[in-house]
Amino acid sequence: MRGTAERALGVHRVLEPAGVLPQAARRLDPDPAVGPDEVRISVQRLNLDAASFRQLSEACDGDGEAVRAAVLEIVRTRGKMQNPVTGSGGMLIGVVDAVGPESPLGLAVGQRVATLVSLTLTPLRIADGLAHWDGLSEQVPAEGSAILFARSIAAVLPDDLPDAVSLAVLDVCGAPAATARVVERAGATSVVVIGAAGKSGCLSLAAARAAGATELTGLVRTDAEAAALTSAGLADRVVVADATDPLAVAAAVGTPADVTVVCVDVSGAEHGAVLATADGGTVVFFSMATSFPAAALGAEGMAADVTMLVGNGYTPGHAALALDLYRSEPGVRALIDPRVTQ
Amino acid sequence: MRGTAERALGVHRVLEPAGVLPQAARRLDPDPAVGPDEVRISVQRLNLDAASFRQLSEACDGDGEAVRAAVLEIVRTRGKMQNPVTGSGGMLIGVVDAVGPESPLGLAVGQRVATLVSLTLTPLRIADGLAHWDGLSEQVPAEGSAILFARSIAAVLPDDLPDAVSLAVLDVCGAPAATARVVERAGATSVVVIGAAGKSGCLSLAAARAAGATELTGLVRTDAEAAALTSAGLADRVVVADATDPLAVAAAVGTPADVTVVCVDVSGAEHGAVLATADGGTVVFFSMATSFPAAALGAEGMAADVTMLVGNGYTPGHAALALDLYRSEPGVRALIDPRVTQ
Repeated sequence: MRGTAERALGVHRVLEPAGVLPQAARRLDPDPAVGPDEVRISVQRLNLDAASFRQLSEACDGDGEAVRAAVLEIVRTRGKMQNPVTGSGGMLIGVVDAVGPESPLGLAVGQRVATLVSLTLTPLRIADGLAHWDGLSEQVPAEGSAILFARSIAAVLPDDLPDAVSLAVLDVCGAPAATARVVERAGATSVVVIGAAGKSGCLSLAAARAAGATELTGLVRTDAEAAALTSAGLADRVVVADATDPLAVAAAVGTPADVTVVCVDVSGAEHGAVLATADGGTVVFFSMATSFPAAALGAEGMAADVTMLVGNGYTPGHAALALDLYRSEPGVRALIDPRVTQ
Repeated sequence: MRGTAERALGVHRVLEPAGVLPQAARRLDPDPAVGPDEVRISVQRLNLDAASFRQLSEACDGDGEAVRAAVLEIVRTRGKMQNPVTGSGGMLIGVVDAVGPESPLGLAVGQRVATLVSLTLTPLRIADGLAHWDGLSEQVPAEGSAILFARSIAAVLPDDLPDAVSLAVLDVCGAPAATARVVERAGATSVVVIGAAGKSGCLSLAAARAAGATELTGLVRTDAEAAALTSAGLADRVVVADATDPLAVAAAVGTPADVTVVCVDVSGAEHGAVLATADGGTVVFFSMATSFPAAALGAEGMAADVTMLVGNGYTPGHAALALDLYRSEPGVRALIDPRVTQ
């Protein structure tokens, strides 16, 4: 494991503390000189994690200049854009401008790419002082350099879609890929998606359908979301309930499903998801707000024989699958487009 | 779902906040008067969750009196034993002393049972001030009353084993059952158990072997644990590493395994577990100290195509399987017996 494998994870870029992986590091080395297995990206735009941008904006009382200064200071001191309060980062797009001879990523100089690993582990140097950013939006025009390791992921940006659409879709592309895999492996017929009108939710519905599920239920919070989801035609049945009210979720869903996918970014959705799932079924948790003990002990406490998965943001082919679903499903476009700042 | 099904989950015992299930409640009603579908247990002993006991003990600097006072205060204010820091509870044993006419659990007054649902959702009242507990062990002699709902689980204590042994084994019986199921379903050959010398760890090793795995690696923290595990003969290979040091875990494990089972009750074991697992493999997280975001973002950040399971404490047949492994495997007994306060 030592040596090449360590390098592949970027451990050689960790300045402190020693021994941790880049995501857990306080400080990375953003030196733009690429190692033999690294790739350098000429940065064009950062897409800050929503929770991170909100925290910075609130801490600065909405003063864009102050937010910009705060982001610059974080990147300068940490060598990466990881908000020390929220712990989160985001992603970036840019142009490949150097590829080490041993890089296994298959990228070529000149390709426009989005990084699919978090900014929290991506060495980053900002060169333009973020002069073209007003500090008022999470989309940050930027010039600088970022480094990808051997064991990283980047998606070549498609020519046929606006960058903002690609970013929005790629940001959540783990969810539809994992949903498709679970539905296929389990031979699932019925699927419930909790938070079905959002980006990851509507893509997960479309992925479940494509994977062979035939009874799709979309659960949403409001009547407006229900109308939009019904109009999009991605679900066989649309129900309205508060995802954090387990009994309301169970009542709305009715007969429990083979697979339940949790796409709402609120805490407290674990028990409703378990109740929505049949014995022998599977729950896929995609929300970062999921509580591990609440899921584990909740299922045990209800004597619920369900398999519960930690939604892994990476599944091979996830980027292409999500972009294809966006292209091929008008219902997905109808739900995602209004959420994209073009 | 409303009505009988709500009662079955114990919702009528939730005092605050309204609408949540008992496990998510801040406070339960521990009134010993049984409803028509409830069972009351006359408590004899609590078995605190290891992560919870460790947290309490550390917070009290190992002062047993202070730990006892802390547990009493939690039960008094919450109506259940749920550590507010770790979110975890434990289990209990006692004697059935009232059975509602509509209880479906099949229990009879006078039977000695262990509850297999977590203390985090079990209405509990302590009557003796825990006067017979020194606060220095997770096994807590206690007098009081606890309530089981219709949708609960309890195991009648076997006659052939000491109570303390049954309690110790049943406390972790979800781990071997889930390990066996994952190994069987995946047809897994190689299994790594992190924290292999503990109760859930050694039972998981034995369960993996019984389910057909042929390359078992036990990872432990210390040379003393390594010696004990080697002597027990449950693993084909015993390695020593700090579970919270991902590179050390990866180096110790070497070739990644089909299945990795995490049984250490410390935080920070997620990334090492992912690195110990082959692409296409499965990680089963049993530690209540598991961080959901650390697992999800860590796997994504390493482009690790692993399936990650939230260890569900309930699998049908889990109690019988664990007790049978204890009876049939001298190595399991050799590791568990010294941990049991007889």
